[in-house]
Amino acid sequence: MDWKVYLSGEIHTDWRERIERGIADAGLPLEVVAPVTDHAASDNRGAEILGEESDSFWHDQKGAGLNAIRTRTLIEKSDVVVVRFGDKYRQWNAAFDAGFAAALGKPIITLHESDLNHALKEVDRAALAVAATPEQVVEALRYVIAA
Amino acid sequence: MDWKVYLSGEIHTDWRERIERGIADAGLPLEVVAPVTDHAASDNRGAEILGEESDSFWHDQKGAGLNAIRTRTLIEKSDVVVVRFGDKYRQWNAAFDAGFAAALGKPIITLHESDLNHALKEVDRAALAVAATPEQVVEALRYVIAA
Amino acid sequence: MDWKVYLSGEIHTDWRERIERGIADAGLPLEVVAPVTDHAASDNRGAEILGEESDSFWHDQKGAGLNAIRTRTLIEKSDVVVVRFGDKYRQWNAAFDAGFAAALGKPIITLHESDLNHALKEVDRAALAVAATPEQVVEALRYVIAA
Amino acid sequence: MDWKVYLSGEIHTDWRERIERGIADAGLPLEVVAPVTDHAASDNRGAEILGEESDSFWHDQKGAGLNAIRTRTLIEKSDVVVVRFGDKYRQWNAAFDAGFAAALGKPIITLHESDLNHALKEVDRAALAVAATPEQVVEALRYVIAA
Amino acid sequence: MDWKVYLSGEIHTDWRERIERGIADAGLPLEVVAPVTDHAASDNRGAEILGEESDSFWHDQKGAGLNAIRTRTLIEKSDVVVVRFGDKYRQWNAAFDAGFAAALGKPIITLHESDLNHALKEVDRAALAVAATPEQVVEALRYVIAA
Amino acid sequence: MDWKVYLSGEIHTDWRERIERGIADAGLPLEVVAPVTDHAASDNRGAEILGEESDSFWHDQKGAGLNAIRTRTLIEKSDVVVVRFGDKYRQWNAAFDAGFAAALGKPIITLHESDLNHALKEVDRAALAVAATPEQVVEALRYVIAA
Amino acid sequence: MDWKVYLSGEIHTDWRERIERGIADAGLPLEVVAPVTDHAASDNRGAEILGEESDSFWHDQKGAGLNAIRTRTLIEKSDVVVVRFGDKYRQWNAAFDAGFAAALGKPIITLHESDLNHALKEVDRAALAVAATPEQVVEALRYVIAA
Amino acid sequence: MDWKVYLSGEIHTDWRERIERGIADAGLPLEVVAPVTDHAASDNRGAEILGEESDSFWHDQKGAGLNAIRTRTLIEKSDVVVVRFGDKYRQWNAAFDAGFAAALGKPIITLHESDLNHALKEVDRAALAVAATPEQVVEALRYVIAA
Repeated sequence: MDWKVYLSGEIHTDWRERIERGIADAGLPLEVVAPVTDHAASDNRGAEILGEESDSFWHDQKGAGLNAIRTRTLIEKSDVVVVRFGDKYRQWNAAFDAGFAAALGKPIITLHESDLNHALKEVDRAALAVAATPEQVVEALRYVIAA
Repeated sequence: MDWKVYLSGEIHTDWRERIERGIADAGLPLEVVAPVTDHAASDNRGAEILGEESDSFWHDQKGAGLNAIRTRTLIEKSDVVVVRFGDKYRQWNAAFDAGFAAALGKPIITLHESDLNHALKEVDRAALAVAATPEQVVEALRYVIAA
Repeated sequence: MDWKVYLSGEIHTDWRERIERGIADAGLPLEVVAPVTDHAASDNRGAEILGEESDSFWHDQKGAGLNAIRTRTLIEKSDVVVVRFGDKYRQWNAAFDAGFAAALGKPIITLHESDLNHALKEVDRAALAVAATPEQVVEALRYVIAA
Repeated sequence: MDWKVYLSGEIHTDWRERIERGIADAGLPLEVVAPVTDHAASDNRGAEILGEESDSFWHDQKGAGLNAIRTRTLIEKSDVVVVRFGDKYRQWNAAFDAGFAAALGKPIITLHESDLNHALKEVDRAALAVAATPEQVVEALRYVIAA
Repeated sequence: MDWKVYLSGEIHTDWRERIERGIADAGLPLEVVAPVTDHAASDNRGAEILGEESDSFWHDQKGAGLNAIRTRTLIEKSDVVVVRFGDKYRQWNAAFDAGFAAALGKPIITLHESDLNHALKEVDRAALAVAATPEQVVEALRYVIAA
Repeated sequence: MDWKVYLSGEIHTDWRERIERGIADAGLPLEVVAPVTDHAASDNRGAEILGEESDSFWHDQKGAGLNAIRTRTLIEKSDVVVVRFGDKYRQWNAAFDAGFAAALGKPIITLHESDLNHALKEVDRAALAVAATPEQVVEALRYVIAA
Repeated sequence: MDWKVYLSGEIHTDWRERIERGIADAGLPLEVVAPVTDHAASDNRGAEILGEESDSFWHDQKGAGLNAIRTRTLIEKSDVVVVRFGDKYRQWNAAFDAGFAAALGKPIITLHESDLNHALKEVDRAALAVAATPEQVVEALRYVIAA
Repeated sequence: MDWKVYLSGEIHTDWRERIERGIADAGLPLEVVAPVTDHAASDNRGAEILGEESDSFWHDQKGAGLNAIRTRTLIEKSDVVVVRFGDKYRQWNAAFDAGFAAALGKPIITLHESDLNHALKEVDRAALAVAATPEQVVEALRYVIAA
């Protein structure tokens, strides 16, 4: 059986690449999917495609609408959702994805440093695994899928 | 018909009281429910009741477990979920609640200042109304319920 | 057992009043719910409450957002959905409500003149009864509920 | 991952062909599905196959029944539903499809001229993108799928 | 907690009355609901209310449509569905109700003589209790509810 | 897109073969599935495999249990459910399958002679097409799938 | 808001009474429901009511059928499911209830001594709280409901 | 159509191998999936990967979390769930899996000696077949799938 894993959250470090590399090295039967990770495209393509807005709120809403088509569809089709929190930015969309996945009953793996433990306690409680490094996520997936 | 509204998010300002006062003044047929808003209790009662933990991660997880029993049950029983974001703390649990409510198809009203618009664009996109003041939330509920 | 009936569609004739009068006369154990039927309020209260918009599209979207909180909640809580189509306006929201109710598995009664039969054939096919007058709807509800 | 997109609505202009051509040109991994777009077949094949009816209402109902088998199945299997409204005919089935898709939680893209904005405000509010041209739909799909 | 029990099937013997009498005698906190059991009304009220049909098929379909509004709503709201099969008529609607209830996960009690065991083996397999007399149904409900 | 069609009901005439031949002749992208149609196997294999029973009721229940594994799984995976009623036997399992499919929202096509119209009015009301011959079913499927 | 709590599992100690007494003392707005806890009735009433069986397997199955009507209905209607494991008997039905509740997304509280921790690790992982005494369960419910 | 079967429960005898061999010999179009059956890995890999714990409860919870990702995902994707109970250990996770599968409506086959009949009566009541040997399970699957 092939698995599908969604990688939600932080877009400014190389955690996705490290997970993908680990999965490739392990030869796992696993398709990785993710949101648009080009920050500028994620912010602006909505309005560029559907019509520019003078009000930044509606500019943002147009971008967020397109992103939601991708995000919700891929989360619903995934078997496991990995949610990464870094130490910068507010990352409310990552927490939103985690809540969305939790309500759908999707198994969640969170990925963050231990200094975020307290702030993320509700999100971690909804997860079936809490990892500190991308390599731990790869090992967890390898165990879950290929054991 | 009676309505039930869940007030998620920030626990350090009086926004819930202002909404409850407005609802009472308007005489709306509406039950307000909310998470535990006593910060210390929310953090510590889990471990106090179920057994102290030396490791702060598990201390937090015990508290978050009890909080989740309340939070998920009340969100599932609510007709409308209001999610408040303030300018302090990371408030990932508020965003998590919003994602959870969205996946359940619950109508969401977000409540925040406009300087959070960009950071909250994905959460706002999942909402049916975006308010800047508790009084706007009251007016919105009055329109929706009593119109 | 008490029943709840949602009356969707046309807001410019007295069909809702005729149904409510018939229900009261028949003494049926039935709560009638409906969208906001004050046309101006339905169009404008969203922006009045949540902030005026210079662009009429966003003005409309704010109003439609509040209306959707009411409409979707009431349809989901109803046992029967009556959808009325008149001969004026496009009434796409009535057809939208019918599709929404159909996907939820709600029993639908449509109410329209026979000259709309062809244009409404898909909507009628999703209904369990097609009525031409409000009095027929009352008789149908009386049979269904009080038989 | 392959995507499936349903194209609902207007059958008298070439908007579907323009979207399909754009998708082919972009090489997107995307299967396009649609209702029966042969107007006469859509109206008459039901009665031709299952038995002619003297009453036009039942003639229409037989056709609509067969169309519903196709329409509902394809909407339920699709990842994205595009709903097109033109300036002719009442197109209640397009709005019905939009309501049906919305209740299933399917991402919706509406496609119409801006002069229909007010009449379609409830339908647009349920959409994650509102486009004015088929080319915008293609660009939106390209961003969502291939980004 | 109050329970709701739906009594589906045969309308030509007094089995419903015997169950209702037994429930009243036992003082169970239990609301009994049922389809329309007036045979003529069940056949004809649809067409009488919504318009007479010359073709008996459509006459029947109009009646069956109204009956379905009642039947499906009450089955969905019930906690237990009792399905009675007698030795006359084909009673396909009783078996249909049983299948409908089974797919919804409703607990089913079938009620029939043992000479129907073989013909009803698939329906009985979907039931949690198979009774031969109305008094057994009452005793089963008493045990389940008031034990 | 490939479709899957379940053929429920009567096992003593060649209606399934006629439908399968028609589908093959038409070259439709359609997988046909069905219950076990070997009458003796359907009755006896359960007890033969899992242990003989002296009581015919339990003998039947063991067979019906195995049959239900097949039947429910295939109905849930099918896009269209065709239910055939002949003039012999009680065929309650066919009506049960129809009710099961209806509650799952599966499009249903019934197949029977017109002399069964009245007895099958509730089942037909839940169908999107009512056919009198296997060839009509093939034509309906051809229209729905290949149009 | 009133809550409903289901108490599943062990029937040979006074843990239910201790929880009910604690709830009464605390004055919580909480209805307690439970399976039939009379061991003999739970084993035998099915066959006594529906007909004695010579084969003990079918005797047991008749009893288990009636018990399932009660158990599944009450679990589905409960807001919280408490599952108690003692040190005697195999108690597979308690673990079955826990799995059933987990799949429905019901919040679970397990109640057992720490020497069962390893054997119950999968069940505990599906719980939001793990308690060692009935008094801890009462305190947890008081916090969750009345905080 | 290809089927997927999940083999839950006992990990200390060769029942899975016997079923897999039987399936291979019969040439059934059937994918077999299972939990991690390496006892030590199942207990310890969670903590080895995600960080060692001094408290054995949390050590176990980390392992159980990873196991749950695999178990729940595979059960949800399976068409049939076979649950094996042996005469050693408490095997609460097998009963938990059965309850989980039952709430999802998955067809269940239990596999155990007859001396466990009484202790497993609730679990068996939720099954569609009760087998005593792996060979019976193979025969049942052959009948269900290939008949």
